[in-house]
Formats: sequence, C-alpha cells, structure tokens
Amino acid sequence: MHVAVVGATGAVGREILRILDERAFPLDDLTLLASPRSDGVGLPFAGQALPVRPLQKRWFEAIDLALVSAGSAVSRQVLPAAAEAGTVSVDNSSAFRMEPQVPLVIPEINAEAVRAHHGIVANPNCSAIAALMAVAPLHRAFGLRQLITSSYQSTSGSGMKGVRELAEQVEKLHGQEESLGHPDSAALPWGQVFGRTIAFNVVPLCEVPDPAGSGFTTEELKMGDEARKILGIPDLTVAATAVRVPTVAGHAVSIYARFDEEPTREAAREVLRIAPGIRVVDDLAQGLYPTPLDASGIDDVLVGRIRCPEGDPQGLLLFAVGDNLRKGAALNAVQIAELLVS
Amino acid sequence: MHVAVVGATGAVGREILRILDERAFPLDDLTLLASPRSDGVGLPFAGQALPVRPLQKRWFEAIDLALVSAGSAVSRQVLPAAAEAGTVSVDNSSAFRMEPQVPLVIPEINAEAVRAHHGIVANPNCSAIAALMAVAPLHRAFGLRQLITSSYQSTSGSGMKGVRELAEQVEKLHGQEESLGHPDSAALPWGQVFGRTIAFNVVPLCEVPDPAGSGFTTEELKMGDEARKILGIPDLTVAATAVRVPTVAGHAVSIYARFDEEPTREAAREVLRIAPGIRVVDDLAQGLYPTPLDASGIDDVLVGRIRCPEGDPQGLLLFAVGDNLRKGAALNAVQIAELLVS
Repeated sequence: MHVAVVGATGAVGREILRILDERAFPLDDLTLLASPRSDGVGLPFAGQALPVRPLQKRWFEAIDLALVSAGSAVSRQVLPAAAEAGTVSVDNSSAFRMEPQVPLVIPEINAEAVRAHHGIVANPNCSAIAALMAVAPLHRAFGLRQLITSSYQSTSGSGMKGVRELAEQVEKLHGQEESLGHPDSAALPWGQVFGRTIAFNVVPLCEVPDPAGSGFTTEELKMGDEARKILGIPDLTVAATAVRVPTVAGHAVSIYARFDEEPTREAAREVLRIAPGIRVVDDLAQGLYPTPLDASGIDDVLVGRIRCPEGDPQGLLLFAVGDNLRKGAALNAVQIAELLVS
Repeated sequence: MHVAVVGATGAVGREILRILDERAFPLDDLTLLASPRSDGVGLPFAGQALPVRPLQKRWFEAIDLALVSAGSAVSRQVLPAAAEAGTVSVDNSSAFRMEPQVPLVIPEINAEAVRAHHGIVANPNCSAIAALMAVAPLHRAFGLRQLITSSYQSTSGSGMKGVRELAEQVEKLHGQEESLGHPDSAALPWGQVFGRTIAFNVVPLCEVPDPAGSGFTTEELKMGDEARKILGIPDLTVAATAVRVPTVAGHAVSIYARFDEEPTREAAREVLRIAPGIRVVDDLAQGLYPTPLDASGIDDVLVGRIRCPEGDPQGLLLFAVGDNLRKGAALNAVQIAELLVS
C-alpha cells in the first residue's frame, strides 16, 4: 500500500501525517507531495524526517491511495487522471463534493456510501462535519426536518496563513485593548486572508458571496448542500450563517434543529451519549460546556448546551465544537481511508 | 436639573459621561457617584475633572435624575427609596426590568412606555437592544412570530474587568498561536470573570445558568422576556444562545426571524433603511457587512447579511451589531433621560 499525502506542508497535511502515525495506518510506502516551492522541505513522520516532493501527475502511477488537501484547483486538475491511473483519492477540497458519482462521507454517519466510489471520495466541509456529527444521531432517532446554524469558525479554517494573520494583528493591537471601544478605523490592520481585521473582531463572511446573488456565502450554502447529501434528506431545509472568529482551531456551531418527533432533553442527551465520535459536555452548573480550546487536538466532537426551546416541542438547541483540522478535515479523511483499505 | 451618574467609574458610567457631553444634555448640576473605593478619583467631563463621591442614599434628596449602572444589588438597595424621595432613575441593571410597573424602553421602539413610570425606568439588556433595534421595524411591517438568535458578545459586556482579563490572557498566549491547535490544557489561563479561557476561545456561557434548570442561561432568557415586553408581543417565542467571544466592544447577533407575512429581501432592506438608529451595511460583493470593530464607538446599530432562507417564505436572516456600551447601555440610557426631561 503506497500512500501519498498531497498538500503535505499545509495545516491539514501536517495533521494528516500526525494522525496516520497516531492510528498506525497500514502503509508500506509514504510519499509527501506539495507545490514546487516546498521542494526540499522535510516533515516529521514516525520519528523520521520525510522529504516533500513537488507534485507531478506521474507520481500517481505508483500511488494506491492519496490523501489530498491542496485546494480545489489542484484537485480538479489532478484527481480525475489519478483515478483513471488507479489511484483512489480522499479529497479535502469542495471540488467534487456535490458530484453525484462522488461519495461524500462522514464514517460515523454514512460509511456505506464509500463503496460506490469511482476513484474519488470527498471529505465534507469542516463546519458541516461538526454540525452533522451532532445532528445525525438525532436525525436517526427523531427525523430531521430543518436546521438553522450560526458558526464560530477558527482562523485555521483558512490554513496556516489564517493563523499567522491573526497572530500578526494581535501583535499590532495587543496593549491597546482598552482603546478598542473607540477604535481609530484608519489604524486597524486589514489582512490579506480575512479582508477585515480579524483580531478582536468577528467577520460574518467565510469564503465568498454566492455568485447567484442570494446573499448567502458559498460556505453557508455548503452546510445545506452537504447536509442533504450526507444525511440523505433531499428536502431538508437549512439556513446557515457562517462567521469567522479570532480563535486558532476548533469550529463551533450553534444549532437549532427541528424534527418530525418531539425530542425531550433527556432523550436527546441519551441519543448523543451513545453516538460514536461525540462527547457530551453539558452541565452548566458544573461549568461543563464545549469550547474550541477544549475541542482542539482531540478526535471527538464536543456537544453541549442541549435545550428545548419554548413554544416549539419539535425543536432542539445544541452547541457543537469540532477540531476543524482533525475531525473537520484530517481525521475524517484518514477514517475514510481506513474504510477504503478495510 | 441635578443629574447623577451612579457607577460613574465603570465601563458604562464612563460612556454615559462621554455621551452626556456629546449630546449637550441639559443639566445644571452633575454629581458622580460610585463605591467608596473610588473616593477621590476624578473623571473628565466637558474639559473638567469631576470628583467621584461615595454613593450614599442621602445624595438622592438633591438629585432629580439618576443614570444608574452599578449592578442589580445596588439598584435594588437604593432605587426604590430614591424614587420615593422624588428622584427618577434610569437603571442599567436587570433588577427591575420585568416589574410590570417599570417601563423597559428602547426609545426608537416604545418611547411612549416611559410615561407610565413610577420613578424607575429600566434600560434593556445589551444584546437584546442590538437584536430588537433590527427586528422591531420588521415587526411593525410584517408581524413578528418567532425569534432564534445566536450572539457574539464582547468582553466589555462584563465591564472593564472583562476587557482586562482578555488582555491578560492574550499577553500569556500571544506568540504561541500556532501551538493552540494542540493546546496544553493545564497551561491555559483561567480567569475570574469568564471562568474558562476567553483569549483565542469562545465561551457559550454568559451570566449564570437558569436556576430553574432549563439549560438556558439568565442572559438567554432575558432575550425572550425583554423582547416580549418591549415589542408588546406576549406570545412571541424566542430561542437564544448567548456566547462570549474575544472582542473588546460590540455585541453581534445572528438572527432568524419568522413573521406573519412573507418579507422579501428588498422589502426588508427598505424597512430597515428608513428606520431610526439603524445603518444597513449589506453588500457582500463590496465587502459591506457589520462587524464589532465597525460598530464600536458609534451610535447606530449596524444591520447586514439580510437573506431569505430556503423553504421558509416567512423567515428572514439578519446579522446585527451594536456597541454594547453605547446603544446597548449608555446611549440608550441617555436617550431615555432625554425623553424624561422633554
């Protein structure tokens, strides 16, 4: 089994290497590929430094399984030919997610979908994974009808460059916190990654505006499109608001879900307690609730703030937090790879 | 007209002084009161340094109008006697908000309610003000039925000590941002104000758990209680999630509102465009959307991300941001005082 990590030097690529090692993924050969500017870089894996090679299509001739996190443009350019050459790719980009012949898989939810692949399996969007890990077990128990979400997405969702931009802006503004109640707009740092100042701010724009002019962003539309495909509910209505916050890792999602049945708080908590890949953290009086720093670096999606809204017995409120680089990307991709080799 | 600012040294008190000066509030005498530990402090007002006096009940004998921001315990202890002595108080605490004989007022929404006061007028909760400023004009146009909110509340919502705790934690963690994807939990700073680490984190707990055990927080319940009272819709159903984020000023609220009628995006935008106290900032393609840093230090509540959700023609999505210390507290209190003297 010759495995490649494509985009190995990125935030998700490095996390994939860490997780392949942690889980002792069965591989005979491991090749790290990235853009030519990373040529000569070495990355740690299982106590060794592995060289990073420039990505070229000929590499795929030798590769059985590729874990790909190099952006949609690269995936579109490379993966169809790789599939024809016999490589099976797990793709972290959004390039193929909505293609009918490409499975879109969260192993705890729809593992069986992976079987129908034609050389490409898509890894879902990071905030969709956090939300759906919490909602899918409840859907099986109570029948999901509607989903309303507001997210709190970390800067690493835009890669290492996002984290660095936050750190640079914090460097500029730290020490003046008390003056930010009356900020000098002209002096605020505007970055390349988030457009607006992200340090000490929240930015209700993730990715880009829907080209169709709906007023939603592409990140927000993915929540609906991917939820319908992964859960297999074509008529599920979804309204998502995606917001970037000045955290480093961990995407949080505030969820209002409506079901066919009427879930009690206790029944919902019991369903979530026994669901795989989820940890219920839900006791306000004991200071137990999920936060991004608690979810960072771990595999489970944390779910808490489980409440029944007044006046809507079919509704349920939740707060879910998943590590966007792990379950939201690298871990889920490696779990898909494990399904493929098993 | 002898005016007092009670709690003058706090974050809201200082902002009240600034706004009284900005708006040239009609006063003959201004007395600053605070706890005894602020005795001897001087605060700037209209180019002078005014002394801060220790709060004692006898002060109210001379005072016509008090702007009070000293916490619920002080308000409960002092304001009923002050009212009997003839002082009219505008109270920023939650102590009297739900008392039937106490008006709860946002001047742009229910100015007429102020007339029925018996010596105390309550200023609403800061995130409720941001949300209701956006929703009230839409209610008048389309008839509000349901409100689902998720907030992004700044640290100054807990006063200057909240801002200082954020700054102290940023001081400890800045420079290690890239390691926060795998944080050493034991080394994370835990503060006195927010319990959990607030720097580079979000905390889904504002105020305290509902003593009745509903799973909501008192901050979340206020959104519903105050919306029903201010809008005069006793059967309005509200589901709020309140989350603290590492910003300094500006409370943002992601809103899903449902109406009796079916608002189009254009009709909603037009209603908001002509509503007082609101600025529509809503053109993603031009990079126009509201953020806390844009809303900090200004009077208007910024409203954007106006969208119609799929599958729910009666629904509308919004993102509103207001300066929690100004319109969310000090400005709204001074506006109420202006109503009282006019």
